[in-house]
Amino acid sequence: MLKKTKTGSGQDGTLIIIGGHEDHDGERVILKEVAKHVRDGKLVLATVASHEPEGYLEKYQRSFGDLGIPHVTELYIEERDQATSEDKLAGLRDVGAVFFSGGDQLRITSLIGDMPIYEHVHEIFANGGVIAGTSAGASAMSDMMLVRGSNASSFRIGDLSMAPGLGLLPNVIIDQHFAERGRIGRLIGAVSQNPRVLGIGIDEDTAIVVRGHRFEVIGTGAVYLVDAGDITHTNIAEASPDEALSIYDLKLHVLSSGDGFNLETRRPDRENVAVSLEKTS
Amino acid sequence: MLKKTKTGSGQDGTLIIIGGHEDHDGERVILKEVAKHVRDGKLVLATVASHEPEGYLEKYQRSFGDLGIPHVTELYIEERDQATSEDKLAGLRDVGAVFFSGGDQLRITSLIGDMPIYEHVHEIFANGGVIAGTSAGASAMSDMMLVRGSNASSFRIGDLSMAPGLGLLPNVIIDQHFAERGRIGRLIGAVSQNPRVLGIGIDEDTAIVVRGHRFEVIGTGAVYLVDAGDITHTNIAEASPDEALSIYDLKLHVLSSGDGFNLETRRPDRENVAVSLEKTS
Repeated sequence: MLKKTKTGSGQDGTLIIIGGHEDHDGERVILKEVAKHVRDGKLVLATVASHEPEGYLEKYQRSFGDLGIPHVTELYIEERDQATSEDKLAGLRDVGAVFFSGGDQLRITSLIGDMPIYEHVHEIFANGGVIAGTSAGASAMSDMMLVRGSNASSFRIGDLSMAPGLGLLPNVIIDQHFAERGRIGRLIGAVSQNPRVLGIGIDEDTAIVVRGHRFEVIGTGAVYLVDAGDITHTNIAEASPDEALSIYDLKLHVLSSGDGFNLETRRPDRENVAVSLEKTS
Repeated sequence: MLKKTKTGSGQDGTLIIIGGHEDHDGERVILKEVAKHVRDGKLVLATVASHEPEGYLEKYQRSFGDLGIPHVTELYIEERDQATSEDKLAGLRDVGAVFFSGGDQLRITSLIGDMPIYEHVHEIFANGGVIAGTSAGASAMSDMMLVRGSNASSFRIGDLSMAPGLGLLPNVIIDQHFAERGRIGRLIGAVSQNPRVLGIGIDEDTAIVVRGHRFEVIGTGAVYLVDAGDITHTNIAEASPDEALSIYDLKLHVLSSGDGFNLETRRPDRENVAVSLEKTS
């Protein structure tokens, strides 16, 4: 039975959504946060996004081992029919933590979407577990995910592909490797299609930790919130596919470690810091 | 005598500010616009930004020649003392059009700043001429210009250098090669230091044509307006130099060809198009 999530449900577990290239050698702020939420020392590393998952398990076993998580097991499937195998499902029993590594987000959803594994992941989350994802594993968290779109260029009307994601965090679109790959243009393009959806761009070695309708930022980079709720004009519906996007009155928040954000009110809410400044102009 | 410009003066000439790599082979929308403003068929190409200006003159002579501008002459100086030479100054007499090509914006300002050549450029502008600039030549147009700052990364508090520009367009900071080099982070960093200043990021093969306090966008890319006038929080003054910037409630407009913008009201003002949409959320 799938539990329907709202915009940040409030009753579920924790999502840790990482912009890729989380630190494995230094302070490991992000992996430590994941480890903090792991119960019973068991975590499943879902490498299903990758065409060549060799080496991932060893890397994460080493990192999480250092952080007091002795049992890291791999969930990998090559073909969709394996997503029903009792073997694969067994690996998810009695586990409260799943970590989706990088690769291609369409592999994640096309291989496990609407399958028993997918339901298991939702159940782990609904029962208070932690679901983490980095890079492609981050993009797959939302209802709709970006699957293609130019980096480092302004958005062209025809230049975007989206696909249904895992649906763990509704009403948002997540993009990763964000500043590093110059992706603001494509995220603006995505939210302009329907301002109901909030754009969340996450830098490398940076993550949002979502509980209920609130998240906090950890890591060394920034998180960009693109809110098209108050836009007054866009040419997205009228212009030809090769034209550049035009959009007026976007709201943009840039958050860094220590900042929080309320997904219901769409407002930053830095704890213990007054969120007001005199207008300087 | 230097004429003091206001935010878009209303009485002056035309500025054509180009994000670099303007088209020289296809429709040449931007160079055509420059040519439209050239009086008497004479244009001075100021290659002073470049360490190696070889080839620039021939390229622009060819392009402008095709567009009906037979007289393109070069203004190049190697050392500051040449900026007073009667030779160099003579080249600017009876000319209504100067085009600053790319290179290093600090070369432009350090070589001609506060020199007779600089005053001549201002006079040409004040007398209704056209001053165009591409890439470094675009950055140099404003009061303050960005001279360093990481591309394709989120802004770190300590990671920015600014310098005084030519002052032809006050109260703005211009960045170029904008989406192509992932520069939104550094432009946000620049405006966060003083929200009085409006950030203008211009893509390659894209330009703004400024007359008075209004500009219009031409070319194939987009122009990003970053307005920090209503920000409610930033950590720019408190955080340590290697920390990522945090800034709430930025306003962002993305404009493309046909869009206009009023620098006084800081509002897009697309001519002949209703600038309103029902809020969708």
